[in-house]
Amino acid sequence: MCHLCARVSSPPAAGREPLYLDDLHAGQRFTTVSHTVDEEEIREFALRFDPQPFHLDAEAARVSLFAGLVASGWHTAALTMRLQVESGPPLAGGIVGAGGRIDWPRPTRPGDTIRVESEVVKVRPSRTRPDRGIVTVLSTTLNQRDEVVQSLSADLVVPRRSPPGRPAGAP
Amino acid sequence: MCHLCARVSSPPAAGREPLYLDDLHAGQRFTTVSHTVDEEEIREFALRFDPQPFHLDAEAARVSLFAGLVASGWHTAALTMRLQVESGPPLAGGIVGAGGRIDWPRPTRPGDTIRVESEVVKVRPSRTRPDRGIVTVLSTTLNQRDEVVQSLSADLVVPRRSPPGRPAGAP
Repeated sequence: MCHLCARVSSPPAAGREPLYLDDLHAGQRFTTVSHTVDEEEIREFALRFDPQPFHLDAEAARVSLFAGLVASGWHTAALTMRLQVESGPPLAGGIVGAGGRIDWPRPTRPGDTIRVESEVVKVRPSRTRPDRGIVTVLSTTLNQRDEVVQSLSADLVVPRRSPPGRPAGAP
Repeated sequence: MCHLCARVSSPPAAGREPLYLDDLHAGQRFTTVSHTVDEEEIREFALRFDPQPFHLDAEAARVSLFAGLVASGWHTAALTMRLQVESGPPLAGGIVGAGGRIDWPRPTRPGDTIRVESEVVKVRPSRTRPDRGIVTVLSTTLNQRDEVVQSLSADLVVPRRSPPGRPAGAP
């Protein structure tokens, strides 16, 4: 069993009260636990999904734009997702993204300890589907020096606690 | 060795002429080879990076928003990157993204065969760094029914063939 597979994650939002659209408002903030990224996992991800020299070979990376080995931006994105699922906002129905704006102002490097801080920016009930809405969440992934390695403004689909005009428990 | 690790990718842009900023212009198009996504790799990626029931368990997925098992959006993004690195635009210096806008109009499902079609949208020499520029590339990931599973407008850092005023070979 490889390093990548051995790290089985905890169940999502385990033991936390789920949040529905009705429970969310702009300004709400969440912070995840942290994760230290090692060179082995950077290389394993890159080998599978982004096999470029600056993610795979320390010597080639040294003379690249990055001046050293760096994680794929998609690896930073995937690790951000894991941190969010495990210890970010415990959204009812899970974290379901329709899309977003992603930026990597600097790369994740071996030994970096990253965490995700997120803030609800906007909550919109759906105009066509009374059972759900779209919540825009700005998630910032920071390293141990509080430098931003990723910024993601994502539109998430979140269910309502109950359809409007039909409170929970109504027949 | 796990399924995930066993699939070692080819070297990037192997045997293809590298493209510098000077070689790129709006309207240029590229198409990758295709990849068929199986349920096992969807579950392996999800276990590691997005452990939510609709990516892991067919029965739980059936009663979810997705009405069946689907790949994590980040898995679609990572597979898109691999296809681009292996058979997309052979950019000099590699495919180095600063950020972009990503959308998943529909999910990737087990058995889907995906490919990436991309188009150069804009080429801008850097105002501060004469050795490089930013190229905006719109990459559309399509399934076997030509349905869009991901759209990514990415800003890529691409080196110039030679600094302006100093043609290649000049002393």
